[in-house]
Amino acid sequence: MRRKPSRGSYDRELAHSILDEALSCHLGFAVDGQPFVIPTIHARVGEVLYLHGSRASRALLTLEGGARCCVTVTLVDGLVLARSALHHSLNYRSVVVLGTAREVTDAAEKRSALEAVVEHIVPGRTTEARGPSEADVRSTFVLAVAMDEVSAKVREGPPVDNREDHELHVWAGELPLASGTAAPIPDPELRPGIEVPAYLSGWRR
Amino acid sequence: MRRKPSRGSYDRELAHSILDEALSCHLGFAVDGQPFVIPTIHARVGEVLYLHGSRASRALLTLEGGARCCVTVTLVDGLVLARSALHHSLNYRSVVVLGTAREVTDAAEKRSALEAVVEHIVPGRTTEARGPSEADVRSTFVLAVAMDEVSAKVREGPPVDNREDHELHVWAGELPLASGTAAPIPDPELRPGIEVPAYLSGWRR
Repeated sequence: MRRKPSRGSYDRELAHSILDEALSCHLGFAVDGQPFVIPTIHARVGEVLYLHGSRASRALLTLEGGARCCVTVTLVDGLVLARSALHHSLNYRSVVVLGTAREVTDAAEKRSALEAVVEHIVPGRTTEARGPSEADVRSTFVLAVAMDEVSAKVREGPPVDNREDHELHVWAGELPLASGTAAPIPDPELRPGIEVPAYLSGWRR
Repeated sequence: MRRKPSRGSYDRELAHSILDEALSCHLGFAVDGQPFVIPTIHARVGEVLYLHGSRASRALLTLEGGARCCVTVTLVDGLVLARSALHHSLNYRSVVVLGTAREVTDAAEKRSALEAVVEHIVPGRTTEARGPSEADVRSTFVLAVAMDEVSAKVREGPPVDNREDHELHVWAGELPLASGTAAPIPDPELRPGIEVPAYLSGWRR
């Protein structure tokens, strides 16, 4: 979805829903022609992606200054088994964002970005967790990526085989993948008497 | 893991196990300083990654010719809830591969790469699915990435909070994520009398 009038809000909403569902993203940037792709955590606020940057990405992006980057998220929804090897695939939803990264230096923006990232992972959590102190804010590296171009791609449904392959005695179809959770594991040093919060026991993606 | 004698086989085995478990990967490359990160399917054969290339990646990589690229896979294993917002994280295993991509043109190599990709997704499947015809092989774009530098990164275990935050009355710990499957969905045009194969009903990741 380039930002053209011909593409409607539907595509944008689709892209937003995929970005919001994904727990992690892949940040791509290039230094002297060498691309790097680093996984990190993100949150979308309007048309801006906030990323929790690593030391590596900081060092490299600082070199470049206002570097072009690409942020991609992918949700794998299932295996697609065709009758022919060639047409095997995955069902998935992905979004590719092209944009420019800048380091967030304003303390208030950084603070709200950090909260957005936590809320993105576990909605409701910031009502309870200790918010970032001034030292926390200073010590953290946050990137803001302006979503200049956004394209969503979705593959769903059954395999697509050549007509003549339909005669083969080979099972074909989809194996849906579902992400689930196991029981929460309390921190070994958790103080006694603190129950698992409802926003976590009801957590779903 | 740069390929140094000081790094042992353990790291390499770890990286291999993560690459082999991941269903999809993210291929990063740059054109005129603009990075692109595209999700695709892969298979590892020794120290080579074979990727099922898209038309987009073909066009872009062809422009570059023997382009430097980065292939990253990430497995998200759980949510990490710290007492402080700042220390929230994910438990994950990731591998970053830096290498050079070449188009696979040899028919025999392409054929075995396609089979490796199918076996990577569903072990056992190539015993049953129709193998690639000569036309299939010609019509497919396969990339081979020599794994020149490989680094694996793993975060596991409980959150790491500042000592003074341990006094807070806030639940802290991990929420393990487990990938599961739903019942296989037969292709609507599946011929009657073809049962779900054992390699699929027993599929796990």
